[in-house]
Formats: sequence, C-alpha cells, structure tokens
Amino acid sequence: MSGPNLRVALAQINTTVGGIPGNEAKILDYMDRARSQGADVVVFPELAVTGYPPEDLLLKQDFLRVASAAQERIARQSQGIITAMGWLHSEPAEGSATQQPSRDHQSGVVKDDSGHSPLLANCAALLQSGRVAATYSKQLLPNYGVFDEARYFTRGTDNLVLSLGEHGLGLTVCEDIWSEDGPHQAQAQAGARLLLNVSASPFYRGKGEVRQDMLADRAKTTGAAVVYCNLVGGQDELVFDGQSLVLGPDGQVLARGAQFEEELIVVDIPAAMTAKAPASAFNGSMRHVELSPVESREKPSVLPALAQPLEPVAEAYAALVLGTRDYAHKNGFREAVIGLSGGIDSALTATLATDALGPDNVHGVAMPSRYSSDHSLSDAEALARNLGIDYLTIPIEPVFSSYLDTLAPFFAGRDQDVTEENLQPRIRGALLMALSNKFHWLVLATGNKSETGVGYSTLYGDTAGGFAVIKDVVKTLVYELCRYKNHVSGREVIPENVLSKPPSAELKPDQQDTDTLPSYDILDPILTGYIEEDLDWRAISARGYDPELVKQVIAMVDRNEYKRRQCPPGVRITTRAFGKDWRVPITNRYRGE
Amino acid sequence: MSGPNLRVALAQINTTVGGIPGNEAKILDYMDRARSQGADVVVFPELAVTGYPPEDLLLKQDFLRVASAAQERIARQSQGIITAMGWLHSEPAEGSATQQPSRDHQSGVVKDDSGHSPLLANCAALLQSGRVAATYSKQLLPNYGVFDEARYFTRGTDNLVLSLGEHGLGLTVCEDIWSEDGPHQAQAQAGARLLLNVSASPFYRGKGEVRQDMLADRAKTTGAAVVYCNLVGGQDELVFDGQSLVLGPDGQVLARGAQFEEELIVVDIPAAMTAKAPASAFNGSMRHVELSPVESREKPSVLPALAQPLEPVAEAYAALVLGTRDYAHKNGFREAVIGLSGGIDSALTATLATDALGPDNVHGVAMPSRYSSDHSLSDAEALARNLGIDYLTIPIEPVFSSYLDTLAPFFAGRDQDVTEENLQPRIRGALLMALSNKFHWLVLATGNKSETGVGYSTLYGDTAGGFAVIKDVVKTLVYELCRYKNHVSGREVIPENVLSKPPSAELKPDQQDTDTLPSYDILDPILTGYIEEDLDWRAISARGYDPELVKQVIAMVDRNEYKRRQCPPGVRITTRAFGKDWRVPITNRYRGE
Repeated sequence: MSGPNLRVALAQINTTVGGIPGNEAKILDYMDRARSQGADVVVFPELAVTGYPPEDLLLKQDFLRVASAAQERIARQSQGIITAMGWLHSEPAEGSATQQPSRDHQSGVVKDDSGHSPLLANCAALLQSGRVAATYSKQLLPNYGVFDEARYFTRGTDNLVLSLGEHGLGLTVCEDIWSEDGPHQAQAQAGARLLLNVSASPFYRGKGEVRQDMLADRAKTTGAAVVYCNLVGGQDELVFDGQSLVLGPDGQVLARGAQFEEELIVVDIPAAMTAKAPASAFNGSMRHVELSPVESREKPSVLPALAQPLEPVAEAYAALVLGTRDYAHKNGFREAVIGLSGGIDSALTATLATDALGPDNVHGVAMPSRYSSDHSLSDAEALARNLGIDYLTIPIEPVFSSYLDTLAPFFAGRDQDVTEENLQPRIRGALLMALSNKFHWLVLATGNKSETGVGYSTLYGDTAGGFAVIKDVVKTLVYELCRYKNHVSGREVIPENVLSKPPSAELKPDQQDTDTLPSYDILDPILTGYIEEDLDWRAISARGYDPELVKQVIAMVDRNEYKRRQCPPGVRITTRAFGKDWRVPITNRYRGE
Repeated sequence: MSGPNLRVALAQINTTVGGIPGNEAKILDYMDRARSQGADVVVFPELAVTGYPPEDLLLKQDFLRVASAAQERIARQSQGIITAMGWLHSEPAEGSATQQPSRDHQSGVVKDDSGHSPLLANCAALLQSGRVAATYSKQLLPNYGVFDEARYFTRGTDNLVLSLGEHGLGLTVCEDIWSEDGPHQAQAQAGARLLLNVSASPFYRGKGEVRQDMLADRAKTTGAAVVYCNLVGGQDELVFDGQSLVLGPDGQVLARGAQFEEELIVVDIPAAMTAKAPASAFNGSMRHVELSPVESREKPSVLPALAQPLEPVAEAYAALVLGTRDYAHKNGFREAVIGLSGGIDSALTATLATDALGPDNVHGVAMPSRYSSDHSLSDAEALARNLGIDYLTIPIEPVFSSYLDTLAPFFAGRDQDVTEENLQPRIRGALLMALSNKFHWLVLATGNKSETGVGYSTLYGDTAGGFAVIKDVVKTLVYELCRYKNHVSGREVIPENVLSKPPSAELKPDQQDTDTLPSYDILDPILTGYIEEDLDWRAISARGYDPELVKQVIAMVDRNEYKRRQCPPGVRITTRAFGKDWRVPITNRYRGE
C-alpha cells in the first residue's frame, strides 16, 4: 500500500439508460480522473454501463451482449486502480430454469437460443489489473414502489469479502444495505472493515437524511467505514440525487457528494478504520478474494468533499430542474415551450425550465380567450420579461368560435357545461403541439399534483406535453417553490400578483378553483394522506378534516384514474408519485367502506 | 359420499376489480346454482372476491379489511357444498418484516398500525359447513409479463393435501400448475388424485391450446384428474377467456367451459379417477386436512359441458368484443362514439363496438377535411348503415382553417409539414371529446398495433379516447377480422371498398400509408419479431427482410415510446401488448449494435 491511508474516489456520475457507449466513455474518463488524483479505489453507481433502471431493455439478448462487451472493455482498462462498479451479469440458463419455468407459456417471455430464459444478476464487480477480480450478486431485490427488480434478476446467495493488503473490504449493491440484517452484516463479521455500496437510489424529499441515518447505523453496528456511491441524474420520472456518502465506523460523515450534480468525490480513509480486525480477520465463513496491493504512487493533496445538504424547498427545486434538464437533453430537445396562463403553475414551470435549459431555449406562449382577465396577459408577459425568455401571444378566440359554430347543430337546446370549458385547453394543447411539431420544441405541461390528483384538468388540453414538470408538486408547495425562487434571486422573478391572486382556470366567467375544490391548504393534506400514505377516509378525517369532504376528494381521485394514465411523465419528488409507484386499476369499483 | 362419482361445478365468473359487494353476491349466487345442480364441490377463480388483478388496491388497509369481511361472510354460507376459491390472506406482520425491511425508507410504502408492512398471500381456500376448512398459499408468484405478484404477495411454502371420503384432493393457484415441478406434483405423490386449480390466466391468441396441453401433461405425469377454473372478463387491458377445463388422469378433456362467457360448468368425475391410491394414500409428507364427507342428495341430470374452442380469428374477435364491453360497462358507459374515416381501422372498431354494446349505443362520426376523398364519406356512411348505428357528419374545415390562420404569423416562410397534418386528427380528437363530454359517450380510439408500434399516429388526435379497441391488432389481422365478420354475417357489413382500397391517413393530397411505411405484410412480421419476441435486427433480417428496412422500423418503434406512454389502454390479444408487459424507458439511447 502507498501509505497508511486508503484513498477512495466516488464517481457520482450521470449515466443515460441504454446509452452504453456514452456511459462507457464516462466511466473510463472518471477512472482516469480518479487515478490522476491518486485514488487507490474508485467506486461507481449500480448498473453503471446500462444506466438505471434499464427496464425491459434487459429482455433483449443483443442489449445484454452489448453491455457485457462494454463491461469487458472497462475491465481491461482497470490498470493502476481498483474499480468497484455496478455490473450486469448475464448468462444463458443451463438446463431447466426452475424458478420460472412457465414464463414463456403464461406470458410469452422470450427465451435464448438454447430455449431457456437467460439468468440475469444485478452485481457489483471489483476490477483490478485489467480483469474482473470478483463479482457479487445483489441479494435483496426491491420489487415495490418504483422498483421491479424481481422481474429481471435472480437473487444472489453467495456472500463475499475481499482483502486489499491490510484492508478488509465488503461489497454490496444498493438495497442490500438498507436492511439491518443485509449481507454487509455478515461481511463485517467475516472481517470487512470498509463496506462499499454501489447504488442507484431515487430521490424523494428528505431522503438524504433518511439515507445518512441508515448508513450511520450500518457503520456503527458493524464497526466498519461505509462508502456509498449513488447515481445522479434524471431518467423519465425518476431523479437520482447523488449525495454519495463516506462515513467512519462511528457514523461520522467523512465526505458527502453534492446533490443533483456529477462529481468525483475523493477522500482519504485512515488505515486504522479499514484494517482487518485481527481477531475476526476472514474467518472463512464466506468466499474470500485477495486483491493485489496497489502500487505506491504520488498522491496530490485533495480538498475535503463535504457538500452541505440543501434545505427542503431548495432540494425540491433542484430535483425539478435536473429532472427537466435531463429529460429534455437525453431525449434530444434543446428548447421547450410552455403555455403561460398568468397563473402560478405555468409560472413555476417556466421558471424551472429556464433554470434547466437556459432562457434562450424557453418559449412562453400566452393564449388568451374571451374569459381571460387582463392581468392574465400582463402577468404572463411580466414573467417572461423577468425570466428573459421568448414570449408569444396566440389568441384562441377564432378557433374557439369556429369549434362552437361547428358543434352548435349537435348541441342545440343543451346548456353550456364542462364541454365548452374543455375545448379551450384542448385548443391550447393543439397550438403548443403545432409549435412543437414545427420547431422541435418540447412541450412542458403545467399541471400540479393537486389537480392531477382530483382530475381538475383537461385531457389532451392542459395535460398535453412531453413532460409534466410539476406533476408531483402539490399546489401549496408550488407557492413555496415560487417564493423560494424569488427569495434566492433577490428579486421578483415570479410577479407578486401571480402569487397573490386567487387561482382560476378562467374557462368561464368569474371562475375560481374554489368553486369546485376545497382550498388547497385543506385539499393537499387530504391528497397526501390518500396518495402517499394509502389511508382511508376515516384515518384522514381523524386528522381534523370533514369526513364528507374527505370522501368527496377520494372519489374524485378514484374517478380520474383514466386521465392520469394518459398524462406525460414528470419528476417524482415524493414517496409516491403518479407513475411507476402508482399502479391503480382504471376499472375499479372499490369505493371504500 | 352421495354415490360413486364426484360432481364438480366450475364457476367461471366475470368479477370486477374492487367491486367486492358485487363479486360477493355473484359468488353466493353461483354457490346456490351449484348446489341446486347437486354439485359436491364448486370451484371459483383466483382472488374471486377482489377481482384480478387488484394491483395497488392491495396496499390499502381498508381494502384488505373489506375483502376479508366479504370472504368470511361467504365462508359462513358454505353449507351443503364444498367451495374452493381464490382467497386473499392478509395479516399484520409480526415483528420485523425480514423480507423487505427497508421498503418504507427506500420508497415510502405504507405500514400498518404496528409499524410493519402487512403480509399478504394469494391463496386458495376450501370452505365447508360454514367455515374455512383449509387454505393454501400460492408458491409460484409470476412477476414477469403483465404480472407483478412479487410486488404484493409473500410466497407460500406450506403444501397441502385433503381427503373427502375416499377422494384425495390437491389444491393450487394458477401459476403453480404451469411448472412441471409445481406443488401439484408433491400433492399427487402424497395421495391427491383430483387436482383443483383456481386461476386467473389472461388471454393471448392460442393460449387455450397451450393451456390444455400443459394441463394434459400435468394429469398424465401425476395420474390425477385436473379441475382448472379460470376467470372470464375484461379488466383494463387484460381479457380473461374462461375456457375452464376438467381432464381425466389420461389427459382427456372431460369438460370445457365456453370462451369469453360466464358459465357454471358441471361435470361428474368417476370415483375411480379420484379415489386415493391405496399404496401412497396420504403418506405424511405434508399437511393433511380431512373434509367431512358431503351429504347424500338428489342429483339432477346434467348436460355434458364441452364447448368447442373457437377458430383463431374468431377467438381474437370475441376477445376484442368482451374486452370492449367490459371496459365500457364496468366503467359506467352505455354508449360509445367512434370517428369514422372510411378506412378499415375505424370500420373494425365500430363493428366490434356494435357487437359489444349494441347498435343503439354506438355513434359513428365522419369528420371530413379538404383532403378527404369522396369514398371516405360514402364508405363511412355505408358502414354505419350496415351496422345500424347512429351516423353524424361534422366537417372540420372551418376549425382547420381557423387554426391555420391563427398560426400563419408564426409559421411564415416555413413549408407545410407534419404540423399541418397533425392538426386535423387533433381537431377530430377534440370534437369526439366534446361529444363525449356533452353526451357521456365513451370515445373509442381506432389505432392498430402496426401504427401504434411505429408511431404512425397523432398524439391527442387519432390516439385520443378512453379505450383503444384494436391497439394490439396488427394491420394484417385487422383485414382478417373484417373478412371474418363479413363471412359469419353472411353479408357485407364492412363495405368491400373499405377492404380493397389502399390505406391512407388522408392528411395531405394523395397520401398513402406506403409513402412512409413498408407494406403491412412486410411491416407486421418485423414488428412482431421486435415487439413480441424481443429480437434484434439481425435475427429479424435472417427471416428474409432487408436489414436496412428492419433497422428503420426498429428505430421508429424506439423513437415513439413517448406517444405510446400517453395512449389509452386496449385489449391485449398477443403475448406482448403495449401495456403492462411493455416496460420500455422513454429516455433510452440504445440503438442496437
């Protein structure tokens, strides 16, 4: 070893799902950077080469081959640095796949040339001197919430410890370490004093603290130091927050990565922390791999990497910005377009988009109707001016009139109702899509979680777009985020009038949200109880809400599942968004008891 | 026992997810009917009280309580008949839920009052004399394709045999019996000679034969008779085909239920088939429950229940009809509306809707534009006349012109392109949605699987609707289904001109599908290879297609994932539809090798 301390680099990188050549190049670049900073070990996130989660790409034989080839090339480049990284293991199944022998009949899952489903494992590999020194298969496969890992992977059963000179290492993958009794526990008992974890842990608000508390507990109960490398970046609805951590055996934080940013975190871990305990050193209870001690080399001095965690509103804001930027850029969009109603939802969406893509790449479009108030246009224009973005005005009156004329013979004798209201957002949706088609601008939908929850929205209207930036942000948090933005900007980015006027869809004369909905400070906690906590009306009412109102809100949520199913994805920032973690049937007669 | 033979009734019922009171009433009704037909045993499908699949309703504590209460009431009504039924077992977890201890932190899954996630099991129960005589927990939990059972259920480990007088019974749940080595095998070795399976096996084309072959093999290898009760009905994208089976130990079919229809199938199974083999009778290798022999009673004579399987095209047609009817009715719609272009996709959709809902409940709307040919209107009108449905004509020209005028200042100097094409279907989508809003008609989208696959569709335009009837039907099958309908009707329901003219979207002058796409007899097998078999371009080309064309088609599929994500559900009739069994990331840079 090159001295008493182990220098560890955490490559908190932003991969792209399916972008194997780009991910490979990034990994090799970070290996170089880690080497040049004198790191003995570099750690990458889970499934680094494929991106996370690769979902059903894992069912493609060619995808598995391409990923394996890239991994092999990376292994060959592992000269002069020990590399721990997420690793996709795939092999043709031998004999009968006893775990799921009928999957091809029951559902038509494809088999490989030998007639069997391939066995996949979600692994961590340790690379050294141009080869794979060891792999470890994830033992705890999350299959809840947003996770579907049992759909793809075989559960690992073989535990592992490694020695690197006097250092004892353990190795786990993400979920493994979330369990008190996870495989790290046995690794520590077998002599590991430095627990490496390769992770892809999606963000929700406050998760950094939950994660740090959990890891501190793991450090203290095992007496080992913990190196936890997390992914960063947006992938469809998920955003990974980075915030990688290194903790000493006492649970103290030695290093913390930035939130929502790529970073190479370099930290020296005192040898006293990681040296194998003489009494228990490698007691033979599991597989033991001996790594070659790394060569001594110059170690340039490194700065302490101890990013301060963001405040709650700031971290939500940053998550939304990164999620939006990555969705746009990873899908080939440089520019975005947003319908500006003069209201607060579109104001926040445009503000986030401006921070994500830059003011030159954002187009705000006001589309006034006969029901738009004067302040709608002036507020929209003021916002665009404050943001420095492009601003267009496209009145919808002529198209609206021609729809009404066209439909008049069929609607004769019937009252105006929600039909005529819905036409207006549908015209706006079609206009935004026309701009998108003509100029290749990504349409950003502006619906928040409160209205998405109760279905206070028009399908193919205000729900239209490629990405719904604030779909997991309840209305009360929309206000907080706007005030936060104005506060940190030191100026009125979002016009005060937008923040103070009562919310209105302006689809008929003198309309206000509160005509249809309870006020948001009552609606939001009811929705949160129902959506994020799966509580029934009794439990929610017990928190101090009118039982009849709670039942009405729940009924609105249930009734509007069909709309949500056709909404675009958006950034998940809570423990349960309307996405992969919300698998509610549309056809559903359950109405509570 | 009441004679030498066991009379078994299979209650092939159509449940509704979440509709617990309705499902309970139906189960009690079928128990009565089975009793009145002198059945000794009645068998119901999997998760009969909740409907299948209940998805995330299973995460609600109150839902679990309501389902349990209904089950207990049913058990109390089990006088005079042995009832085998799918059964939801739920109990608060005691102590630490060791399997997924971190789920609450990693993803925010709700815990019960004791602070633990409840343990759920997907069971079969045997009810007798007003109580639960035995339960068995499903051991093989499908978590692939459309299935997510590992998300909800704990895997059973405790096997079971039962005796009923001289009869030896085994009991399994759905997937269990799809595995050659499934728990039925050990049950038979322990003495079971009649294997009951409660099932909810979703349809794909040809599955009946696959299922029968599988069950015949299970009968022959165990030497036991098999009673397989399947669900029937539509649930969002899934349709369950019924076709329950009873087979003798030689694999011969003793009874077969109808496809796509509710039915009580009653069959006498000779005692010689089901009597415990003296040598191996209940050898003590597993839990053994002794049922009270049923009382002797009058047994009215029953007709043999041996429905003939439908031909391949007929069964696809029947699946689409039932899936559409159940989606509409279970979601509270009596009437539907369809845009009639004069083309074959809308013709088939309207025809299926008419068979599903009745001609009085279907409204066809022609929405001609400047690019519509004369035959479009005359063909649409002829179709509506042939079907006997309501027919409306709403020209879109005024709205289209007003959109073009509105956008002209922004599009000055730019060529017409797909933007102007897309406006037309978006106007039609908005008009259909307006009719839906005003008259509470369900909008049925008309896109087929070929165009949904390559994205030859307009989001919020022709993709708009509550249900996409033929989204899993490739274009070549669309033609087959139309010809089949005309054939069985003995007349030209779908006008011959609709079948013979070249397909066109009619969004610009002289447009034909083949301007953009290969002919469908080439496109469809390429798509099937890519979508249903997960093959890469090499493997598909090896079947005799131009490699460059194959790559282009694959690129179109990949590029249009964002559209599919916002499309309505539709009936799944293949081994892989664009639904729960297609979990492909939108953000995906994989482009093959």
